[in-house]
Amino acid sequence: MIYITRREIFSAAHRMYREEWPDEQNLKVFGKCSNPNWHGHNYTLHVTVKGNISEELGFFINLGTLKQIIKEKIIDKVDHKNLNLEVGFMQGKIATTENLAMAIWDVLKPAVEKEGAFLHCIKIGETENNSIEYYG
Amino acid sequence: MIYITRREIFSAAHRMYREEWPDEQNLKVFGKCSNPNWHGHNYTLHVTVKGNISEELGFFINLGTLKQIIKEKIIDKVDHKNLNLEVGFMQGKIATTENLAMAIWDVLKPAVEKEGAFLHCIKIGETENNSIEYYG
Amino acid sequence: MIYITRREIFSAAHRMYREEWPDEQNLKVFGKCSNPNWHGHNYTLHVTVKGNISEELGFFINLGTLKQIIKEKIIDKVDHKNLNLEVGFMQGKIATTENLAMAIWDVLKPAVEKEGAFLHCIKIGETENNSIEYYG
Amino acid sequence: MIYITRREIFSAAHRMYREEWPDEQNLKVFGKCSNPNWHGHNYTLHVTVKGNISEELGFFINLGTLKQIIKEKIIDKVDHKNLNLEVGFMQGKIATTENLAMAIWDVLKPAVEKEGAFLHCIKIGETENNSIEYYG
Amino acid sequence: MIYITRREIFSAAHRMYREEWPDEQNLKVFGKCSNPNWHGHNYTLHVTVKGNISEELGFFINLGTLKQIIKEKIIDKVDHKNLNLEVGFMQGKIATTENLAMAIWDVLKPAVEKEGAFLHCIKIGETENNSIEYYG
Amino acid sequence: MIYITRREIFSAAHRMYREEWPDEQNLKVFGKCSNPNWHGHNYTLHVTVKGNISEELGFFINLGTLKQIIKEKIIDKVDHKNLNLEVGFMQGKIATTENLAMAIWDVLKPAVEKEGAFLHCIKIGETENNSIEYYG
Repeated sequence: MIYITRREIFSAAHRMYREEWPDEQNLKVFGKCSNPNWHGHNYTLHVTVKGNISEELGFFINLGTLKQIIKEKIIDKVDHKNLNLEVGFMQGKIATTENLAMAIWDVLKPAVEKEGAFLHCIKIGETENNSIEYYG
Repeated sequence: MIYITRREIFSAAHRMYREEWPDEQNLKVFGKCSNPNWHGHNYTLHVTVKGNISEELGFFINLGTLKQIIKEKIIDKVDHKNLNLEVGFMQGKIATTENLAMAIWDVLKPAVEKEGAFLHCIKIGETENNSIEYYG
Repeated sequence: MIYITRREIFSAAHRMYREEWPDEQNLKVFGKCSNPNWHGHNYTLHVTVKGNISEELGFFINLGTLKQIIKEKIIDKVDHKNLNLEVGFMQGKIATTENLAMAIWDVLKPAVEKEGAFLHCIKIGETENNSIEYYG
Repeated sequence: MIYITRREIFSAAHRMYREEWPDEQNLKVFGKCSNPNWHGHNYTLHVTVKGNISEELGFFINLGTLKQIIKEKIIDKVDHKNLNLEVGFMQGKIATTENLAMAIWDVLKPAVEKEGAFLHCIKIGETENNSIEYYG
Repeated sequence: MIYITRREIFSAAHRMYREEWPDEQNLKVFGKCSNPNWHGHNYTLHVTVKGNISEELGFFINLGTLKQIIKEKIIDKVDHKNLNLEVGFMQGKIATTENLAMAIWDVLKPAVEKEGAFLHCIKIGETENNSIEYYG
Repeated sequence: MIYITRREIFSAAHRMYREEWPDEQNLKVFGKCSNPNWHGHNYTLHVTVKGNISEELGFFINLGTLKQIIKEKIIDKVDHKNLNLEVGFMQGKIATTENLAMAIWDVLKPAVEKEGAFLHCIKIGETENNSIEYYG
């Protein structure tokens, strides 16, 4: 099996909070990430898929295809957007990077499998110091 | 003369727009950066100051002092904040990185000079592909 | 399961050698890393913990908590220190990055588990070309 | 078990294509990477080996030894070379990064085992956005 | 004056040599970079332009415009190409990074000035260790 | 004029202090960098030289020559060494990065001029957040 990873970067605003909690409680639990006026990040997204390479082609998924899937399904939906207000697959979820990684997994898994590949890992870096990985 | 540069990173939300313009005009001029629901970045701030080193100490400004000035005057004001709504020194200005660099210059210049150093350059990276420099 | 990784950097001096060996033997086995006058690195520490996220909060360990544990238990003990002479958990061990990774694992495992998380990996980069991983 | 990773960088030219296909077909399948006049990359190679550390030495393989093996067996053969025309272990294979990773695995496995270590992973970055991993 | 820098990356093959010299002489003068079978790099291009910001807009050149100019005039011409054989503005020149920087300057200067900006610097990184700057 | 920059990395131990001062005074002035047991860094050295390129060769100094000068004059003297105890050109100076940059300038200037180039800048990064530049 071969693993191929595509990196993309997107910039978005978000806020971590529970709507039914007062700001003080959100601040206590989520810290400065619960700022009601939003803040944002350059998120780094690593999508890793795996498969058995075709001997005829020397790969199992065309990198251009993978790039296009990630662009259409994820980047176009989140880049320069507000994760809480504008991203369909994050509705009803707290906008943590953990939930974002799991939501992106759910979106990409069927799209990648349609191309005969397996989704292996979604990794999201929120800053250069913090990152999340999800393997399904 | 010796130049010393301190790098800091902060995460903030912003929107580029003119309040008196309709969203369509803002979108046309500022592109996706004018999204009314905000977006955000991990901004990289490089502050360069210059001076003549003291032979007794081997430096002209204590790095700890420089770090503290930048933290108090800038990072505490912009990190996990909304540049348009919450940052005093950006009020009345379009929240471009260009304007941000000039505003930070104006804030840091007197603070650095009080320590006997000269402010040389404010450099801000908005993404890994785009950055701004201002030399006063 | 979700994996969360926190990166920290610390600067330390060290020397690789066996005390009972003459310098020549140490030099032969450990190379320039056995310099009796010490040398040092900016070590990059990646701590990865795993857990099942709480649906209420969208995470399983608060990043601030994780950061604080690493700071108190590790960074405060090793940053701007001599790994051979001043770091309690390295006493009696050769100051290789391999041993450092295993020692940090032993220190962090109970601290992380007290927070309901599992320690998954300690990764230490000694230079941009060399790194060590330990999974327990 | 401890994992140690050595990073090396090499610069090479390559072309992805099947000789028996016309240029149009190669272009359709392999895209701009099939340019008949070649193109090239700074490839980033991460070699990860694993083993049980010797208590006497604090490591299981000398980093200098590992570096020397990679240099002799791989870097000297691929750096500033044409992967299609000049690299023995790529003959008869399409010069994809996937095939390159598998070929490097086959070359390094016995050499690393001779030193009492196990080869764990070959990771090659073709650009900062695309990378391949192979675990045998 | 404000300086804005746009980074782009392109992958290309090249060879440093003088056609009228035998391979041995080229090898002696240009080293492994004169390999007759080509080699290649991921080149990092930094284009810095300067200007006085418009108070109405908060910038002096739209980043999208700058990006488009660089794409059309440079990236589309050099990415996944052979610098010696396929790049018009390098014809008749030795394909050193020095010459490449000066040639890109000549191409971008009028295009940037048409937008009311001044070209300040072309910086090209050939590897992470070597880079060239040209200021006209 | 063309500017060429070569990056090198070296690992060294150092301590910032004045010998005639008690440890408390050194600690107050130099902070944790005055630890009597030493600490260390991976220093990043950028050497920039400038010149007018030869039309015949497409460069003004061979990169291999520049690399060799830096290796012999600097890297071999500081890598895996103690800057205070073992580096000739730092004797009698406080081991700040500022003094290190100026000392390296003094060593490299004549060596570079012998090759017909001009030394333009010595830049040293001590950590990823702090760096020093010296232009003579």
